[in-house]
Amino acid sequence: MSEPKPRPGGRTARNREQVLTAVSAELAENGYDALTIDSVAERAGVHRTTVYRRWRNVGGLLADVIAAAGDLDWQPRDTGSLAGDLTALNEEIQESLLAEPSIASALIAVSFRSTEAAQGLARMWEDRYAQCEIVVERAVERGEIPADTDARALLIAATAPVYHCLMLLRTPPDPGLPERAAAGTALAARAGAFRGSPHTTRPSVS
Amino acid sequence: MSEPKPRPGGRTARNREQVLTAVSAELAENGYDALTIDSVAERAGVHRTTVYRRWRNVGGLLADVIAAAGDLDWQPRDTGSLAGDLTALNEEIQESLLAEPSIASALIAVSFRSTEAAQGLARMWEDRYAQCEIVVERAVERGEIPADTDARALLIAATAPVYHCLMLLRTPPDPGLPERAAAGTALAARAGAFRGSPHTTRPSVS
Repeated sequence: MSEPKPRPGGRTARNREQVLTAVSAELAENGYDALTIDSVAERAGVHRTTVYRRWRNVGGLLADVIAAAGDLDWQPRDTGSLAGDLTALNEEIQESLLAEPSIASALIAVSFRSTEAAQGLARMWEDRYAQCEIVVERAVERGEIPADTDARALLIAATAPVYHCLMLLRTPPDPGLPERAAAGTALAARAGAFRGSPHTTRPSVS
Repeated sequence: MSEPKPRPGGRTARNREQVLTAVSAELAENGYDALTIDSVAERAGVHRTTVYRRWRNVGGLLADVIAAAGDLDWQPRDTGSLAGDLTALNEEIQESLLAEPSIASALIAVSFRSTEAAQGLARMWEDRYAQCEIVVERAVERGEIPADTDARALLIAATAPVYHCLMLLRTPPDPGLPERAAAGTALAARAGAFRGSPHTTRPSVS
């Protein structure tokens, strides 16, 4: 097997973007059962052999959609307070889950059927929570919360209610939930609720 | 259409139990795609027309499995402290999600594909959280937490991290998580994190 010749600049990247956009749109509009290499290729306006060669199957496409979402140069907002930063984060999460169509909730649904999607999502969340640890570090530097606060436990406590209510309990969307979950977690953190867990493994802030 | 004649005492109930046990076992072992009226009837040792007549389709079977789980005379444990009660609750949840096979996590997975299952689960959770409000009422009576604590918000904050880590993030099971999430939420509640939300709609304790 020979390496494919390099394409003219940008062609491959453009193809990838078209294909991944088509996967997201197909998934959100028609669901997992309708997702095939052919439906994606047609929607993307890309030759089906191009899609087969690069992504092999639906699992490969899903894994790459999730990887591409994780590639984005995303950073949590810096609002000047822990409660504010966590509220901004929760509002982003709630918005992404309530978008119509919502690619985020479509991917979560698919993760219960595709091992590739489940593994891809797990990696993406791991990256996102790692990127969010700066929010906790800033709060420690400001003296808002104890220095031995377990960043990951705090971030999961703050965000889990939003996912839980929308994705599992399926309660009607509550516009106040992002702020309430954030404020409650910030108060708990100040009270020392996330101190000194054995899970504090991140290096100390330099 | 005539009403079916009453069966000899207990026959109908026995059939239902056999059928619902078979649904749970099929679902947990072979998944949703393998679930059919025929596979359930065969496993239950019940005639397929009996299953068709009573449950009509797979959606009807799933809704009844969930309804039966909600029928159980379940009560949250009374350990004498809010942190203890919430830990016991979280340990039950974690155990049910990690059981092999886990009917709870199979039903959650199915809820992303079957509207009946999604609605049934939403009702079951609503019932369970309502049953758990006594935990918060007891803590208020003991003077552990403020009287205007929003019971539902507290219960969701306590339990959401367990569901989030196991069902969505799919992080490796952490035996300390039930207790940590419970203790953190109890501390937050004492600090007033769940006070006086507009969502406090339950009647005052008499």
